Amino acid sequence: MSLLVVGSVAIDSIQTPTEVRENVLGGSATYFSYAASFFAPVRLVGVVGEDFPHEHVALLRDRGIDTSGLHVVKGGKTFFWKGKYLSNMNDRETLEVQLNVFGEFRPTLSDEFKRCAFVFLANGAPATQLAVLDQVTGPRLVVADTMDLWIREQHPDLMQLLKRIDGLVMNDSEAKLLTSDENLVSAGRKILDLGPKFVVIKKGEHGAMFFSEHETYVLPAFPTERVVDPTGAGDSFAGGMMGYLAAQNNFDPKTLKEAMAYGILVASFNVEDFSLERLREIDLDDLQLRMEKYKKMLSF
Amino acid sequence: MSLLVVGSVAIDSIQTPTEVRENVLGGSATYFSYAASFFAPVRLVGVVGEDFPHEHVALLRDRGIDTSGLHVVKGGKTFFWKGKYLSNMNDRETLEVQLNVFGEFRPTLSDEFKRCAFVFLANGAPATQLAVLDQVTGPRLVVADTMDLWIREQHPDLMQLLKRIDGLVMNDSEAKLLTSDENLVSAGRKILDLGPKFVVIKKGEHGAMFFSEHETYVLPAFPTERVVDPTGAGDSFAGGMMGYLAAQNNFDPKTLKEAMAYGILVASFNVEDFSLERLREIDLDDLQLRMEKYKKMLSF
Repeated sequence: MSLLVVGSVAIDSIQTPTEVRENVLGGSATYFSYAASFFAPVRLVGVVGEDFPHEHVALLRDRGIDTSGLHVVKGGKTFFWKGKYLSNMNDRETLEVQLNVFGEFRPTLSDEFKRCAFVFLANGAPATQLAVLDQVTGPRLVVADTMDLWIREQHPDLMQLLKRIDGLVMNDSEAKLLTSDENLVSAGRKILDLGPKFVVIKKGEHGAMFFSEHETYVLPAFPTERVVDPTGAGDSFAGGMMGYLAAQNNFDPKTLKEAMAYGILVASFNVEDFSLERLREIDLDDLQLRMEKYKKMLSF
Repeated sequence: MSLLVVGSVAIDSIQTPTEVRENVLGGSATYFSYAASFFAPVRLVGVVGEDFPHEHVALLRDRGIDTSGLHVVKGGKTFFWKGKYLSNMNDRETLEVQLNVFGEFRPTLSDEFKRCAFVFLANGAPATQLAVLDQVTGPRLVVADTMDLWIREQHPDLMQLLKRIDGLVMNDSEAKLLTSDENLVSAGRKILDLGPKFVVIKKGEHGAMFFSEHETYVLPAFPTERVVDPTGAGDSFAGGMMGYLAAQNNFDPKTLKEAMAYGILVASFNVEDFSLERLREIDLDDLQLRMEKYKKMLSF
């Protein structure tokens, strides 16, 4: 089944303790789309400026990602993010943000896009995410991401959103912030009470936790010593997860757990180089091979 | 097979964000012994003062732990530690330490104890750990714990120890400190180069990683929302692990992984109450039940 993602498409400049990359392709919807495209056809809705390099669009199209919903604002500039990772490669500082055309992002879906069965609302203002939900017609599964900014500054909108989605994906620190609970297990359960049928808490290098009414589990990250750039890890996790669900056209507990594992593995490749560089080098066979190792690692 | 542990026996006063417990039973060898005693007979070597309550010795003896190596110093005072956990229940501050009789701890093993096949050198000065190794005769498996203090202040002794042990167990922050490497996967592999045949890095609420020449894997912690007191989590992990190995009289890769899992589960119970209170409430059946849940959690 087709998969819709609405989110940011960006140009990033990234500093790590050992390297600098200027003006590389980034953005939540970008990482998500590319990761999901290993499994299922993706329809991307986003906005860029006239400065956005055509090669980036071509890269996504070559993966079979439908970019007809990528709006180009004449004379506008693309969302720009500049960040710096600290030596632990987990904590980061934002050095510069230029929202540019993303600041006025009011996604409008084509009739075809409105009928997508699987919908992912990448991190964005809850009001914008709600505006997308108002347009889709009878989706089978809606999952959203969010962040500390919206928890702090648009809490009522976020609460409204949580009542209308099936799944919520967020970072550990954000789950703690949302619930004022430092224990991730009870935090996850509290978030279920706010509306979603399931909650995924991303723990970065420590993997991800899953919560539903009947299940609580944690899956570790795949151990890799090649951590070059963690940017997009969370979005590529979500892309792998949602792409697998859309491909299976199913989200029963068994399929959800498999999807979590695929998300973890796509993310583990993603961090091994800047931007989409590592994901561009691999194919589904590489993911399957890592899946075999991962399953072996977790069986005893 | 019998299992020898040499380490601290202490009186702890513990503050958590919600509770305070004064003068409860603590110490690395205490937690280790009790945890291991679910699986195998344990021989404990340690030192306490004349103030050490007899009920604590009785508690250990009732578990079949051989306390004949617990030396009581006449007129001496038992090692005392006072600590405070911050709201995340992971970070802690030491408020007070009185080494007392533990400061002069020079373990001497009886002939019977010298012949133990499985040996665990709980956290202590590397010189003391080496002095124990000089006494044991032909152990099958020697595993040691260490901490930041010894990495910083007794580095040459620690390097000597690492060449003489089979396995090293340590915290994530200590592994990073020892190797000056922020990536735990490469840190673990670097520690293997220092001598041990296997390395276990404990990640607290995120589980534990295992490294040997041919294997690298990570197992998550068992998710519990009842985190009352994390004191002794690492020592009860090591106790569960070593106890299981001693019971199996084996440490092939398959048994080591099962042992890691049992260590994780004993620790997950241990944090559910102060001191040994939670471990006292459970039996091997409770551990087996949690093991079934844990295996189910990790299979997909």
